[in-house]
Amino acid sequence: MTDQYISRHPVHPLYLSASDAVALVRRKGLKVCIAGIADRIRADFLRWPDFDKSARVANHSADGVIELMPISDDKAYSFKYVNGHPGNTSMGLSTVMAFGVLADVATGAPGLVSELTLTTAMRTAATSALAAKALARPDSRVMALIGNGAQSEFQAIAFQHLVGVDTVRLFDIDPAATAKLAANLAGCGLKVQICANTAEAVRGADIVTTVTADKQYATILTADMLAPGMHINAVGGDCPGKTELEVAVLEAGKVFVEFTPQSRIEGEIQQMPHDFAVTELWEVLTGQKVGRESAGQITVFDSVGFALEDFSALHFMHELALELGHGERLALIPQLADPKNLFGSLLPTEVARHPISPWNRVDAL
Amino acid sequence: MTDQYISRHPVHPLYLSASDAVALVRRKGLKVCIAGIADRIRADFLRWPDFDKSARVANHSADGVIELMPISDDKAYSFKYVNGHPGNTSMGLSTVMAFGVLADVATGAPGLVSELTLTTAMRTAATSALAAKALARPDSRVMALIGNGAQSEFQAIAFQHLVGVDTVRLFDIDPAATAKLAANLAGCGLKVQICANTAEAVRGADIVTTVTADKQYATILTADMLAPGMHINAVGGDCPGKTELEVAVLEAGKVFVEFTPQSRIEGEIQQMPHDFAVTELWEVLTGQKVGRESAGQITVFDSVGFALEDFSALHFMHELALELGHGERLALIPQLADPKNLFGSLLPTEVARHPISPWNRVDAL
Repeated sequence: MTDQYISRHPVHPLYLSASDAVALVRRKGLKVCIAGIADRIRADFLRWPDFDKSARVANHSADGVIELMPISDDKAYSFKYVNGHPGNTSMGLSTVMAFGVLADVATGAPGLVSELTLTTAMRTAATSALAAKALARPDSRVMALIGNGAQSEFQAIAFQHLVGVDTVRLFDIDPAATAKLAANLAGCGLKVQICANTAEAVRGADIVTTVTADKQYATILTADMLAPGMHINAVGGDCPGKTELEVAVLEAGKVFVEFTPQSRIEGEIQQMPHDFAVTELWEVLTGQKVGRESAGQITVFDSVGFALEDFSALHFMHELALELGHGERLALIPQLADPKNLFGSLLPTEVARHPISPWNRVDAL
Repeated sequence: MTDQYISRHPVHPLYLSASDAVALVRRKGLKVCIAGIADRIRADFLRWPDFDKSARVANHSADGVIELMPISDDKAYSFKYVNGHPGNTSMGLSTVMAFGVLADVATGAPGLVSELTLTTAMRTAATSALAAKALARPDSRVMALIGNGAQSEFQAIAFQHLVGVDTVRLFDIDPAATAKLAANLAGCGLKVQICANTAEAVRGADIVTTVTADKQYATILTADMLAPGMHINAVGGDCPGKTELEVAVLEAGKVFVEFTPQSRIEGEIQQMPHDFAVTELWEVLTGQKVGRESAGQITVFDSVGFALEDFSALHFMHELALELGHGERLALIPQLADPKNLFGSLLPTEVARHPISPWNRVDAL
């Protein structure tokens, strides 16, 4: 793929590999990237009605789920491919792997093909922090972090820098995961407290983030652990049959979601009646609805991850790649001299060039 | 991307570019590829109940549509991204551009990222021919081909080699498209007759293939053009508001579809009541339902393109690429030493290597 080739082939999307994304985040800084993605998500949530939204399409199997998450406004279209396979880590694979595409609504041409494994971790943390800024008590400083896997560092860093958290209380059923998280956070300015169980981690916390991976109805957090004024950031329960909160936790708090039709299928609220009252985050961000009503109220952000967050994050990474000159072009789409002559692309050049060639064109194949 | 790199990174999918697909089809031969894809589609349609099926997800705009088409069995998952923008050709872009992915259901890891623009043309023609073999009169030799754009050569070649068509009667509102098709077919053994309008092209035809691109309710084919025993292969009407057949054509024939829930939204039958009787192609292929009931009956294959056809075609191209050694690996997914330590991939190597490093890990970013 030479530069000359690229300039002649404008339909070829920019490709950002997993290592490109790492290089971009290293150059720009992780905090800056998470903050930039949060700003972008906020701006896009503020214009919520502009988007053609749908619940993601999920193919479930015994081991996990594969999902497609499309969304568009009148200019850009994006989708994300993402899996969730809790057993993967035992095989050396990530639980969540993702990639996605940005495309031009006017022509359908893809403009960006990007890794989204790292980017999903950043956008999930950015969304959590954005919601907590809107919903948690402004004096929240202590966060319990239940589930210390691949997403946990991103949550900790986002809450430190965007929400003002200064202490994290860690618990995971896998002590090695907690040790890894604590080591990664060492010296970053966060007070890190390793806890023996969820109840201990939650005790004294202003914010409780649950980000566990098991595909089952779990009750990571029960109502007896709650204290007045807590904000619950429930990230891990995100598909049918995969929850983290006891029903009583949802009954005890005011519940906020991203996109109700998807959350009723996938979120913690799948455990609740179909008319269970929820408020969408964008309604709070735009000021159309009230978020937290009192310092003593318990707020629950029942997050499942919505396509718009990926749309925002893809735009951020695309602009960053263009700014810093990363990525290469991918010849995923044929660029045809005559778009009505797709067949012609199969012909040997000397045959295609001469419309009245004596060659038998089909038999040249 | 060196070989050494690939072998250390088993999660990296094989990437088949548009030029890889051209090279594969040139080496194997177009007829062989279409026939091979048709065999694969047939085999997969015969085990129809094995698949987790859904109607594709479409984002519509004034200029066109962008769609995602996922499907899976218990081993493999595939999806296709495809657009339909009839105005594209005036900008030098293809009306239909596509790419897709094959993934492992057990882990969610993508195994193949492939162009699907050329491959879609082959699989659409393969599906049309497969349906015609099952539904058209066995003595069908003359085919009208209405719409002479990017898909038309593939239809002609598929019907010549898989159905036994020996004569094609061409019409397109763009005479240049017809001239291109005629030139591409010159000398291939098909008798090619250029016609002045649809009615003339249809006169005397055993099979009528409509493959036009306009996104509107069109009536390319009207009931007065029909003759007893005709088989209609309606390919171009494939999204809401985009049809090619007059309602009376559907009323005059026995109608066959791919996947009823999708066809009721997108097919010619979107013009009919919701309980309009249709037969699914797989039911005919398996012998569970009767196809054509008499030599005089009119049969209509109301084709919209179904995800299973892409699943089959992706498998065919994947196997061909492995057989002929084409494609390269794409580092779309990070391969992590510890899958629970995604954050660690961001650290400078010397920091990541030393778990008790005095470096401030987060601030290393």
